[in-house]
Amino acid sequence: MVGPARFMTLLSCFELGVVDALRERPGLTAAQLGEAVDVKPDAVEQLLFLLVKERFVAWDEESGGYTLDALAEVPEQDLRRALTYMNMIKVVALRQLFYLTESARTGTLVGLKELYGAEGTLYGAVAEHRDLRESWATLMDTVTTRIDPWFFEHADIPAGSRVLDLAGNTGLGAIHTYQWKKSPGLRVTTFDLPEKEQEALANFRAHGVAEHCSFVGGDVFEKIPSGFDVVLIKHFLDMFDRDDVFRILRGVHDTLDVGGRVNVLVPVYPEDPHDTDNYNVDFFPAFFVGCTMGQGGPQKLSVYRRWLEECGFTVTATVSKDPAEIPSDVIPVPAILSATKTA
Amino acid sequence: MVGPARFMTLLSCFELGVVDALRERPGLTAAQLGEAVDVKPDAVEQLLFLLVKERFVAWDEESGGYTLDALAEVPEQDLRRALTYMNMIKVVALRQLFYLTESARTGTLVGLKELYGAEGTLYGAVAEHRDLRESWATLMDTVTTRIDPWFFEHADIPAGSRVLDLAGNTGLGAIHTYQWKKSPGLRVTTFDLPEKEQEALANFRAHGVAEHCSFVGGDVFEKIPSGFDVVLIKHFLDMFDRDDVFRILRGVHDTLDVGGRVNVLVPVYPEDPHDTDNYNVDFFPAFFVGCTMGQGGPQKLSVYRRWLEECGFTVTATVSKDPAEIPSDVIPVPAILSATKTA
Repeated sequence: MVGPARFMTLLSCFELGVVDALRERPGLTAAQLGEAVDVKPDAVEQLLFLLVKERFVAWDEESGGYTLDALAEVPEQDLRRALTYMNMIKVVALRQLFYLTESARTGTLVGLKELYGAEGTLYGAVAEHRDLRESWATLMDTVTTRIDPWFFEHADIPAGSRVLDLAGNTGLGAIHTYQWKKSPGLRVTTFDLPEKEQEALANFRAHGVAEHCSFVGGDVFEKIPSGFDVVLIKHFLDMFDRDDVFRILRGVHDTLDVGGRVNVLVPVYPEDPHDTDNYNVDFFPAFFVGCTMGQGGPQKLSVYRRWLEECGFTVTATVSKDPAEIPSDVIPVPAILSATKTA
Repeated sequence: MVGPARFMTLLSCFELGVVDALRERPGLTAAQLGEAVDVKPDAVEQLLFLLVKERFVAWDEESGGYTLDALAEVPEQDLRRALTYMNMIKVVALRQLFYLTESARTGTLVGLKELYGAEGTLYGAVAEHRDLRESWATLMDTVTTRIDPWFFEHADIPAGSRVLDLAGNTGLGAIHTYQWKKSPGLRVTTFDLPEKEQEALANFRAHGVAEHCSFVGGDVFEKIPSGFDVVLIKHFLDMFDRDDVFRILRGVHDTLDVGGRVNVLVPVYPEDPHDTDNYNVDFFPAFFVGCTMGQGGPQKLSVYRRWLEECGFTVTATVSKDPAEIPSDVIPVPAILSATKTA
C-alpha cells in the first residue's frame, strides 16, 4: 500500500539534489538543505523522514543535522545503476500502472494511449517520445552491458557459425556476438524491422565490425530468414503471450536445418512460486501487461524448456543467474536456454 | 523499486474480478478465470504470480487451479476497508507521485494541475472531480467512523461546553461530538468555509441534532470565532507546514478565554525515527507534499506538544493509538493532544 509513496519519496530526495548536497556538506540541517536545493525546509524534512527510517541517511537529534548513512557506502556506479532503474520505472511505469486493469482487460496499453496518445507498444512509443526513450534506452544499455558477457560465456555458438540475432534492434547484440565469440568465418546478422537498418549499419562501422556483421529487415511474425546455423533470441520471448512465443519458436525451427541451434535469453520466474529471492514476479507482470506490451511476461525456466521442446527443439543446456550474484537494485533474474533442432 | 508494480498488480486482481471469481468458484484455472472475467488467460496468470508468491492465493501445479489462500481468511469488512485505501491511493496518489519532485520544489500540486488542470489543493479539486471525490470521500468516511469513537473517548470536553469544530467540513464531526459527548447544554459549532453551510445544516437536521449544532462560515487563517470553551482540531494541523500550524494554534489561543481547551487529533510519526511498526513515515510526506496540499505532513507527538506550548497552551494529556491495535491495512497512527490555555 505504501509502495508507490516509498518509491517516489526516495527518488525525489535524489532528484531534488538533497543526497548530493549531503554528500558534499555532511551535517546540514533541514533549513540549510532547503536553502542549498531551493526547496522549503519543511518539505525536505518530511521527505527525509523515510530515508532516516531506512538508515539511508542519519539524523542527529541534537544538532538537527543530516549525514549520509548507508548511502555513503554505496559505490557511485551502483548508485547510478539503481537510479537508472528508478528513473525508468518512474517515467515508463508509474503513471501507466494506473491503467493496469484496463490494459489487462483490453490487451492494449491504455496508459500509453491516455498519456501520450500512442497506439501500439512502448517500443514504438520510445521512437516518438524523448522522455520515454531516454529513460528506457539508458536502462537497456545498462542491462545489455551487464548481461551480455554472461550470455556469451554460456551461449552455444560454434566457431565459424552464421548467426542470426532475432529482433536484434540496431545491432548491439550482433556487435557483442562478434566481439565475444570471434572465430574465423563467424558472421552475424541482425534481423529487425527495416527502419532499424541504417542505424545498425552505422553501428557496425563505428565498431569496426562491418565486414562481419550485416542487417536483414523484416518481421518475425511474417518470415524469418534462413541460411543460419545459430539463432539468438535475447530479451524477446518474454514480451509475448504463449501463442506468439510458439509462433516465434516454430518460425525459427522452420528456418533452421537439423543440427541448427537456438540460444534464448529471458528473465525467468523461480520454480518455487513462493521463492522470495527473485523480484521478477513482483515487477514483470505489471510491467509487460501494463507498461510495455499489453501482453507477455516471463515464465519459469521449466516452462520455456517445455515450450522449446513442444516446438521441436531438444534443450541441450540451461543456466540461470543466481539471484545472490545480482546487485540488489537489478530486477531481472535471467536464464539462458540452448537448444538444437534434432528433427 | 517494485513497490508501484506490486501495488497495482494486487489491486488489479480485485478490479478485474479475479478474486471474486475465485471466491465463488475455487479451483478455476487461468483459462477458466480468463473466461469468467473476460481477460486473456495469459494476463490472468501473469498477475496471479505475485498473489501466489505472497500466499494470498494458492496454485495447484497438478490441476493448474487457483484457490484463495490468505485472502479467504480476511473478513469482508477488512477487505472492503483495505480496498477503499488502495483505491484512494491509486486515484489520488499514484499518478500525482510522478510529479513529487516538482511539487516539493514549488510547494504546489504539479500533478493535480497536469492531470486535472486544477490549481490549489486536493480538497478544492475533490469538489470539481467526481473520481477524486468518490475515492477520497469514501476513505475519509471510513477513517472518521473508525477514529471518532476513540477520539471522543479521550477528548477533554466538559459537560455543557460550547464546542467549536475547527475546519469541521460539512458537520460530521459536530454530529459525532453531540452523539458521543451529549450533556445538558452541550452545543457544537462547525466552522468551515461558507460554501459548506447548507450541506452542514442539512446533515444536522438529518441526524436530529439541529437544535444542538450550528454552523459558522469563515477562514481559519483570517478570523476564528470566539465564545467557545473547547476547540476541536481534527485531521487538520498535519496538512500544513510549521508556520501555518503556528498561525492556526495562535489564532485559536487568541479566541479562547483562560481555561479554554483545545483537543488536537493528528497522525504522528514515531519518536524513534527507526521504528518500523508505523507506516506514517512511508506514506504521508509524499502524500501531503505531492498529492493533497503541496506542503504539510505529520510530526512526532513530542513536536506537536512543543508547538502547542510555544503557542501558549499547557498540554494536559496525550494519547497515541498503539500501532498493534490498528488493522494492518490502515495507515494513520493517530494521537490526541489535549491542552488548556493557562495564560
